[in-house]
Amino acid sequence: MEALKQKIQNEGQVLPGNILKVDHFLNHQIDPQLMFEIGQCFAERFADAKPTKILTIEASGIPPALMTGLAMMLPVIYAKKTEAANLDSQFYSASVHSFTRNRDYTIRVSSKYLSAVDRVLIIDDFLANGLALLGLTELIKQTGATLAGAGIVIEKAFQKGGELVRSQGMKVVSLAKIKDMTDGTVHFCD
Amino acid sequence: MEALKQKIQNEGQVLPGNILKVDHFLNHQIDPQLMFEIGQCFAERFADAKPTKILTIEASGIPPALMTGLAMMLPVIYAKKTEAANLDSQFYSASVHSFTRNRDYTIRVSSKYLSAVDRVLIIDDFLANGLALLGLTELIKQTGATLAGAGIVIEKAFQKGGELVRSQGMKVVSLAKIKDMTDGTVHFCD
Repeated sequence: MEALKQKIQNEGQVLPGNILKVDHFLNHQIDPQLMFEIGQCFAERFADAKPTKILTIEASGIPPALMTGLAMMLPVIYAKKTEAANLDSQFYSASVHSFTRNRDYTIRVSSKYLSAVDRVLIIDDFLANGLALLGLTELIKQTGATLAGAGIVIEKAFQKGGELVRSQGMKVVSLAKIKDMTDGTVHFCD
Repeated sequence: MEALKQKIQNEGQVLPGNILKVDHFLNHQIDPQLMFEIGQCFAERFADAKPTKILTIEASGIPPALMTGLAMMLPVIYAKKTEAANLDSQFYSASVHSFTRNRDYTIRVSSKYLSAVDRVLIIDDFLANGLALLGLTELIKQTGATLAGAGIVIEKAFQKGGELVRSQGMKVVSLAKIKDMTDGTVHFCD
């Protein structure tokens, strides 16, 4: 997606440790018009997969997931990372390790919102080591639902996550795939 | 907003302790089409206030804030509740007490995204005791920006928050104002 790649080139910041800072438009300040286009793009790419629900993780996955739900006219569910007082007593959960925060956390989805009749499209902002995606897949498995695929805004293709989840047969669409950024500049795969 | 009120009547659940559970469409599973309408509605109501930025708190504030940003073509910023490794070292912060979770938490916004030239429109999902709104106002004050107003999806008008913030001169627009729900049914103010 050209507009996204340009935004990453113009406003993204490469920090030591292979960190790409995109908090200008993706995960702290958000550009709603760009998110809208991202949603349209995912809707087009996953139309054939005929999902019935969109699933993401709070908080940075919500903007692209919401816009995909808007484009596809589907409900969006976000897995919660904290034990909320208002979460149902019946829920599915999975454990995810975060390298950014260097800790494990539990993601939870109320059992009301996913069931065996669903085809679930995962949307997330980043794919790096793939652990968030595997956690969501594990959670979907528990519900009996079918995984329709995963739409990722930015994939760090130099990390092993993409290969890992694709080798399991998952359809993954990444709108910007980064090949390398070791010289401080973002180089895309295509 | 009629569609919202109907949704609350049809899908909201009143629980003991004056808790209104709206996780079917607002804060766990989200109805993107309804959120889009909510964004349009806030855009209309705050057009005269001429905001330059939308501000909310992760995670449940993000959907209505994002759709308001889309309708007004403005950047959306969400204050973070956790210390993220990728947050800038320069940030504004304020403390908020959460009754739902029964603890204090700190909200943070990078100093890059708000400054004295901004007119900030706050968007949030709930207004009850007003503490989140006061925390955001405190944070905006630090940046030197002007508060353009606050758009709230659901106001529990039987709690003191609405009166408290309006008495300070804040323009607050609530799309659904609940007068009472002690009998287990939601009664709106108008």
